Amino acid sequence: MPRQVKTPTGVPGFRFAGVACGIKQSGRKDLALIASEGPAAAAAVFTKNRVKSPSVTAGARHVRSGRLQAVVVNSGNANACTGPGGLRDAEAMCAETARHLGIDAGQVLPSSTGIIGVRLPMDKINRGIAAAAAALAPDALQDAAQAIMTTDNGPKIAAATCRVGGRTVHIAGIAKGAGMIAPNMATMLCYVLTDAAVAPAALRPMVRRATDATFHAITVDGDTSTNDTVLCLANGVAGNSRITRGGEGEDVLEREITRVMKELALKIVADGEGTTKLVEVRVDGARSVAEARKVAFTVANSKLVKTAFFGQDPNIGRFMMAIGNAGVPVVEEAIDVALGRVKVVRRGLAVGTRESAAVKVMQRPSFTVHISLGMGDASTSVWTSDLGHEYVRINSDYRT
Amino acid sequence: MPRQVKTPTGVPGFRFAGVACGIKQSGRKDLALIASEGPAAAAAVFTKNRVKSPSVTAGARHVRSGRLQAVVVNSGNANACTGPGGLRDAEAMCAETARHLGIDAGQVLPSSTGIIGVRLPMDKINRGIAAAAAALAPDALQDAAQAIMTTDNGPKIAAATCRVGGRTVHIAGIAKGAGMIAPNMATMLCYVLTDAAVAPAALRPMVRRATDATFHAITVDGDTSTNDTVLCLANGVAGNSRITRGGEGEDVLEREITRVMKELALKIVADGEGTTKLVEVRVDGARSVAEARKVAFTVANSKLVKTAFFGQDPNIGRFMMAIGNAGVPVVEEAIDVALGRVKVVRRGLAVGTRESAAVKVMQRPSFTVHISLGMGDASTSVWTSDLGHEYVRINSDYRT
Repeated sequence: MPRQVKTPTGVPGFRFAGVACGIKQSGRKDLALIASEGPAAAAAVFTKNRVKSPSVTAGARHVRSGRLQAVVVNSGNANACTGPGGLRDAEAMCAETARHLGIDAGQVLPSSTGIIGVRLPMDKINRGIAAAAAALAPDALQDAAQAIMTTDNGPKIAAATCRVGGRTVHIAGIAKGAGMIAPNMATMLCYVLTDAAVAPAALRPMVRRATDATFHAITVDGDTSTNDTVLCLANGVAGNSRITRGGEGEDVLEREITRVMKELALKIVADGEGTTKLVEVRVDGARSVAEARKVAFTVANSKLVKTAFFGQDPNIGRFMMAIGNAGVPVVEEAIDVALGRVKVVRRGLAVGTRESAAVKVMQRPSFTVHISLGMGDASTSVWTSDLGHEYVRINSDYRT
Repeated sequence: MPRQVKTPTGVPGFRFAGVACGIKQSGRKDLALIASEGPAAAAAVFTKNRVKSPSVTAGARHVRSGRLQAVVVNSGNANACTGPGGLRDAEAMCAETARHLGIDAGQVLPSSTGIIGVRLPMDKINRGIAAAAAALAPDALQDAAQAIMTTDNGPKIAAATCRVGGRTVHIAGIAKGAGMIAPNMATMLCYVLTDAAVAPAALRPMVRRATDATFHAITVDGDTSTNDTVLCLANGVAGNSRITRGGEGEDVLEREITRVMKELALKIVADGEGTTKLVEVRVDGARSVAEARKVAFTVANSKLVKTAFFGQDPNIGRFMMAIGNAGVPVVEEAIDVALGRVKVVRRGLAVGTRESAAVKVMQRPSFTVHISLGMGDASTSVWTSDLGHEYVRINSDYRT
C-alpha cells in the first residue's frame, strides 16, 4: 500500500478541475480537466478492443510524441460507435481545451466514458471546458476524480512519494471504473500524475509494465471496454536529474507508480456493482507467466467460480473444472489448491476433512485462491470479484 | 426439427433400463443401462477439459476399437478428481455390466455425472447394475433418459427416421445437461442410438461433425465439464447395406443424426437453470468459420450481453464491445447487427430510430442476434441463454 495514506489534493505543477456541464441528467460533475504548468513526459496504454472510441484514436495519436500538457475527460457519453463525426468531436474537445490553456491541440489527450452510440453534445462540452479552465486549481484533484465517475460508488484516488536523486517526488492517481459493468456508462480510466523528471523513452516501458501488473491483472466480468485508458504524465517540477531508461531512479519510480496503480486497480474490483468479495487468484508452479495468467484468468472469469465465491462454497469441482479449461496442458495429479492457508486439493484429489475451515476463509470479504500447477517456476496473481444477485440486477435492470 | 414428433420408446435392437440404486439421496433413478443385441459400431466425442473423469478415460479407451455393445451411466457422482482409484471404479462398472450381459468389459462405455471429488459408492452401483440388467426392455428409453438426469427439469429425448438403401432407419437420442450449471451435479451427456448399418470409420467423422454443429455450438456459461460425452451406437439391425465413408446413405444418416443432436442441444440450452431466453447468435461475413465462431462465442459468453438478454435491453454497446473483444481483426465500420429483422447497427453506427421494435424482438422467448462482419463469406451460429437472477441463486445457494 502507498506510504502516503492521507488523500492527496494535488501534485506539484499540476492544476485540476471538475465541473457539471449537463451531459449527465443527474446534474453531477461530468467534465474533468488536468493541466500541467509545462509540457510533461507522457505515456499511455489503451484498450485492446477492436471497437475503439474515436477519443482513444485521437488520444493515441497525440501521445505518440511523448509530450502532453493537458487531459480533458467527459463522463456520461463514451463517444463510441460514432464514426468520423465522433473523431471530429474528440479533436474539437482538444482544440477547445488548448485554446483556453494557450497550448497546442496536439498537447491534449481526450477521454470519454458513458453511453455508446450517441454523438457528444458539443455545446455542453464546450461550455464545460470553459468553466473547467476557469476553475483550474492546484488542490482540486478530488473534483477531477469525481467528474470522471460514472457508476462508481465514490472517487478513486491513490498516492505515494519517494526519493529520487535527493529530491522528493510525488505521485498521485485517479481512476474510474467498476469493471466493465454497465457499458452504457462504462470504461476504465486512470490518470497518474507525477512531478518526477523522466524521459518519455523511460516512462513508456514503466507504464506498460505497471499496467500489466495492475490493471491488466484485474477482472470483474472478463470484458474490455471501447474506451479504456491509462495515462501517466510526468512534469519534472521535482527537479530531480532526469530519469533515463536503465538509469538511476527508474526502479524506485516504477515501483511507486505500480503501487499507486495497484491501489486504484483493487479499488475498481472492490467497487464492482454487487461485489461482496475481492479475491486474489494466485497461480504458481506454471511453465511460463503466460500460462500462469491463462489459468488465473480462466478461474477468475468463470461464472461458476464467481457464483461459488458469492455463495461461499469451497467445493473443489468448480476450481478443477476451470483450471482444466484454461487451454494449458496441466497435469491433474500435480495440482494443489488452497483457500487462504486451507488446502482443499492435494495432487489432484479432494482434501475432504477441512471443509468448515475453507468455508471460514471464503466468508471473509477478501481472500486468496492459491493454485499450484507443479510444472515449473512461473507465477502470477490476478484479482477478481464474486458474481451475485446485485450484478444481475444492475446489469439487466439499469435501463428501466 | 425431426420428422417423428411422437416421443419414441426405443430403437430396434436396443434394450434400456433406468433404476434407482441409492446414489441420489432423493431416491430418484440414478443408474441407466443401454444394451445392443449385438456389437454396434461406436463413435464418441469427449470433453476437452484437461481435468477428466476416469470414467471418460476408460470410455475413450473402450471406444477406440470402434465397437461397443453397452453403456452404463450413473448420475449423482461424477467420479472426477478421484485418481487411480476412480479409474479402477470405472473399469469395475464395465466389468460388472459385462458379466450380467455376457459380453467383454471392453465392449462397455461407462459415464458418470454428479458431485466431484468423491469416490463412487461401488456397492450401490453393483446392485444398480444387477437391477438394471434384469429390467432391460426394448421400450424403456424414457427410463434411461430419466436415470441420467441431474439438475435437468425433465428427460431430453429426440428422434428421427430416414430411408437408407430402401430400408427405414431409426435414430433416437437421449441427453442430460443444463449447461455446465452446477458442477456438483454437472456434465453434458448424450447417447444417440440407431439401427443403421454403418462402418465405424464412417461413423466417427459423422459424429465429430454433428457434435461440432450442435453440442459444440451451444453455451450456457462458457465452461466445459470434466465428464462431457457424446456417443453414437449403430447396431445394423435395419439391414441396410453397410454405409461406408463417402458411400451411399452417409449424407442422409449424418443429416438425421445432426438433427437429433441439435434438438437435444437446444433442449439443454433452454433447460439452463434460470434461463428465460434461447438466443441464436449468428455471425456471417467472416473470413473463416474459426473467426466466425470466435466472434459468436465471445458475444454468446459475455456476461454483459447475457444480462442484457435477461433485461431485454437492445443497447448496442454490449454487442459492439463483445464483437471487438473476440480477438478477431474486425473492422468497426463494416459491422452490421440486427435483432431478429430489426437492424440496430449499420456500418458500425447505431441505428437509433427503431429501439421499440428491437425491444419487442428481445421480449420473445427465442430470437436471433445477427452479426455481419463484412469481411468474407464464412458464417456460423451458436446458441446461448440469458443470465438472470435464478442463475445466480441456483449457483450460489445450491449447497445451503
